[in-house]
Amino acid sequence: MNQSRSETTRQKILQAALDCFSRHGYDATGVAEICQAANISKGAFYHHFPSKQAIFVDLLESWLATLDLAFNQALNSGKPVPETLTEMAQVAPSVYQVAGGWLPMFLEFWAQSMRDPLIGAKVIAPYRRYQRMFADLLERGVAEGSLETIDTNMAARGLVGLAVGMLLQGLLDPQSADWGNELQQSIYIYLEGIRRRKT
Amino acid sequence: MNQSRSETTRQKILQAALDCFSRHGYDATGVAEICQAANISKGAFYHHFPSKQAIFVDLLESWLATLDLAFNQALNSGKPVPETLTEMAQVAPSVYQVAGGWLPMFLEFWAQSMRDPLIGAKVIAPYRRYQRMFADLLERGVAEGSLETIDTNMAARGLVGLAVGMLLQGLLDPQSADWGNELQQSIYIYLEGIRRRKT
Repeated sequence: MNQSRSETTRQKILQAALDCFSRHGYDATGVAEICQAANISKGAFYHHFPSKQAIFVDLLESWLATLDLAFNQALNSGKPVPETLTEMAQVAPSVYQVAGGWLPMFLEFWAQSMRDPLIGAKVIAPYRRYQRMFADLLERGVAEGSLETIDTNMAARGLVGLAVGMLLQGLLDPQSADWGNELQQSIYIYLEGIRRRKT
Repeated sequence: MNQSRSETTRQKILQAALDCFSRHGYDATGVAEICQAANISKGAFYHHFPSKQAIFVDLLESWLATLDLAFNQALNSGKPVPETLTEMAQVAPSVYQVAGGWLPMFLEFWAQSMRDPLIGAKVIAPYRRYQRMFADLLERGVAEGSLETIDTNMAARGLVGLAVGMLLQGLLDPQSADWGNELQQSIYIYLEGIRRRKT
């Protein structure tokens, strides 16, 4: 198998898995069904992925990579921290578009992770990474004098919590608000709560 | 069956179901196992609950009733809205204590709700109720002049999102912070972001 054909097969498996997970749920989907949907053999599947879990982690990581691309652009803009955070918040609406079909899968995966420490570690890793990313950013804001002197680790966990909670609410109850916009607005409120006032 | 014995049986079923759900998961637990754990017949079970789902909703509602008791005390204190919200935030640490063992169950239930509109409605109801409760409170704050003129529905959804997200993070990753305290602190930050400044 040449490299580009191998990559095509890999993408076909990921897409088929995403379809199956979204339609029938993560638990209810077996490797056999993913193979059928992707029209490949089990051998081909296991050539690319050791397990169904590995697929989930891969899907999660590609999604986060897109997010990181947008974040890094803002982080490297050289602007003061409140402006940087404001730019990062503008990613919010597109996060909903991508994550929309994924929520049941996420929830099941999270539920499993509570019972399996190995999956648990994979689920927690991105949270911790974003908490650190925002703690570093807020630290910079305190140093440059644009933010109040705060516990930056705590405030960063609050910021990640806000994003996660708005995402969850929006996915559970998509009709009742324009959630992407509301996530953005609530990040502005939170930022207002830590911004240094002119005295 | 007299009324107090009936109530005892009901409580026994709820406790047994909670144990089974926490240990084996919501999906993996059947009515037969709950009956065995509670040492009752299937007939007795169905005398009290029409389904496993009904038990989950009952457990959820008792938990929320405890929360509401604490909230109502603060809401009726007659204090200005920022002080009222500060008092409500003090409930945060105890929320974690109760919810700790419940998360896998919640997540599975949420995942199911995405596929079943009837469960979905039950899951969404408390969110909407808390969004309204906080929107009313914030509205009062705007009226009394203690809060900035804001979109109170939006800000209330942000507040609920913050609480839900911190709860989720804390339950997924209990070791990495004192989450009850951090939820409280992040609500203070959010409040600071909407509080009216003296000019």
